[in-house]
Amino acid sequence: MQTTHRITTRFLSAERAAEMVAEKGLAECLRGIADYIHADFLRWNDFEKTARVANHSRDGVIELMPISDADLYSFKYVNGHPKNHRFGLSTVMAFGVLADVDTGAPTLVSELTLTTALRTAAMSAVAARALARPDSRRMALIGNGAQSEFQALAFAELLGIEEFHLYDTDPAATDKLLANLARLGLSARRFASAREAVKGCDIVTTVTADKTNATILTPDMVEPGMHINGVGGDCPGKTELHPEVLRMGPVFCEFEPQSRIEGDMQQMPADFPVVELWRVLAGEAPGRRAAADVTIFDSVGFALEDYSALRFMRDTAVELGRDEEISLIPALADPKNLFGFLPETVGARALACAA
Amino acid sequence: MQTTHRITTRFLSAERAAEMVAEKGLAECLRGIADYIHADFLRWNDFEKTARVANHSRDGVIELMPISDADLYSFKYVNGHPKNHRFGLSTVMAFGVLADVDTGAPTLVSELTLTTALRTAAMSAVAARALARPDSRRMALIGNGAQSEFQALAFAELLGIEEFHLYDTDPAATDKLLANLARLGLSARRFASAREAVKGCDIVTTVTADKTNATILTPDMVEPGMHINGVGGDCPGKTELHPEVLRMGPVFCEFEPQSRIEGDMQQMPADFPVVELWRVLAGEAPGRRAAADVTIFDSVGFALEDYSALRFMRDTAVELGRDEEISLIPALADPKNLFGFLPETVGARALACAA
Repeated sequence: MQTTHRITTRFLSAERAAEMVAEKGLAECLRGIADYIHADFLRWNDFEKTARVANHSRDGVIELMPISDADLYSFKYVNGHPKNHRFGLSTVMAFGVLADVDTGAPTLVSELTLTTALRTAAMSAVAARALARPDSRRMALIGNGAQSEFQALAFAELLGIEEFHLYDTDPAATDKLLANLARLGLSARRFASAREAVKGCDIVTTVTADKTNATILTPDMVEPGMHINGVGGDCPGKTELHPEVLRMGPVFCEFEPQSRIEGDMQQMPADFPVVELWRVLAGEAPGRRAAADVTIFDSVGFALEDYSALRFMRDTAVELGRDEEISLIPALADPKNLFGFLPETVGARALACAA
Repeated sequence: MQTTHRITTRFLSAERAAEMVAEKGLAECLRGIADYIHADFLRWNDFEKTARVANHSRDGVIELMPISDADLYSFKYVNGHPKNHRFGLSTVMAFGVLADVDTGAPTLVSELTLTTALRTAAMSAVAARALARPDSRRMALIGNGAQSEFQALAFAELLGIEEFHLYDTDPAATDKLLANLARLGLSARRFASAREAVKGCDIVTTVTADKTNATILTPDMVEPGMHINGVGGDCPGKTELHPEVLRMGPVFCEFEPQSRIEGDMQQMPADFPVVELWRVLAGEAPGRRAAADVTIFDSVGFALEDYSALRFMRDTAVELGRDEEISLIPALADPKNLFGFLPETVGARALACAA
């Protein structure tokens, strides 16, 4: 009895993912991914975690971010090339995979460029729910690039932010963000500098793309009670916050070994205190202690967030019937007979050559 | 002027790869991949190399193997699950990606299950061309599973091996290999034990799948002048050669830091001498010195071999018109406007919810 065992690898293309997000609703997807992230962070110790593997080149970096629990494995491929906009390409492009730990079979290949923007915004909102003042209503958005709309909508939907203060060194980026936020029904104003944008805000989100040690936020710009959501300082040599800003309040991160290398924290000594966010979510460590505290989330993006986002996208694709299939793994009648997967002509040809 | 910048990601499915190999000829593909591997090994120092990243579980391992030079990045996803045959699945399943280092854009997604078998056999042949006696005509094949036909054909075509001695603990695997080798016009005989199979052979290839410290080959089985091609000892806890076999002649490996952890060498002290094969190919280190020497290639499979194989498969797919395309990366008119990739309904829906 020979049955051909076929591995079903689902495929979610960039277009299908976008259609799916539209059908389910962007806000609903942000909420859903935030719920998945929150739930997965609560079982932090179930995961085999490694810092991402990076190949650096002159103009950018390509990274692989694997993670697994007892049942499910995921990895993300993601690049970071700040000069890509010169060629009309995205700074960040990504795709990812889910696989079955028991057999190693890849079960999903999915776009993650759009999904990464959603999951990063959802992660920021999950952290801010635990760290920002509950009465936060005004957020500065410094860096108005590809991720900014998602950050804005996540904070509007999940934290009740009502007003956004915008600044970017590229005025066209702010034009674009203003137009998109209007389409989303969100209230926003542009400012002439980061300093002016930040003034009077409850939350400051920095999400800039330059691969440099920039100083977007200096200590004199930080006000009591602010929550700082530092998203753009996320690889070696790429920071956004003045080191003294990190000394103004407790600093929270995703996965400490990775954040010490990649986060704004890379500017600080090895013993600089930091709290992994999952501990706050699990009630093991305090988050914000007082309304006047400054809190800092030094976000770099961790593989677990992609694991959560891939799970959400898979479940939603199945729910909405939006997934396709690709044939990535040979279907074999006898797993020891890989040779048998070749067309019959192979033997004939070899015989002809040998003759 | 807004042009939508579309990334072309080629896709090579398992079926298309098999058809392509049949069309070009399996022997021709083995030769071609061997040539690509040889050429890439000669420019060893051009590559950014890392040991592979492994997630281990009870029944297996899932690995990512990235590598890059100044222009091209590749990685392979590969599992190793020795119990998979119980579910009718392959022990090893794989796929891989080529990407453009300048932009980070993925340019190829390809099956690598079939291709890994080809590249492993091609690698073994490249090593044996440099290390085995040129008059080698008889090879023992211990382990008659999914990779064995490819090893046999590579050694027949690239080294002139005329006779194969087969042994496997699973008689059905040997049945299958005998039938396939007959189809390829290759001469083979089965033996009742590894000891009998090895006797009188010029080359011994061990390519077994058990995830254990097995001892396929003991010192008393090794004859003067033999070349040992150790393929199956390729992850921590998985070895095939008795440690004393490794002391019988010079040991060669692919990438030393990885081989010391994963190869049969894992049984030896940290200062046990080993030579990276690229040095032999480049004329920087001697290979075999005398006809009576024993030489040992402790192969584990290195990312550079997949880089070479992916290049070969891409070039051949383009040559034969066998590749397809998949939409992995969103095509954007403005790279800073990822939000604009969402259908227009997204804004409307958000507005409706906000109302």
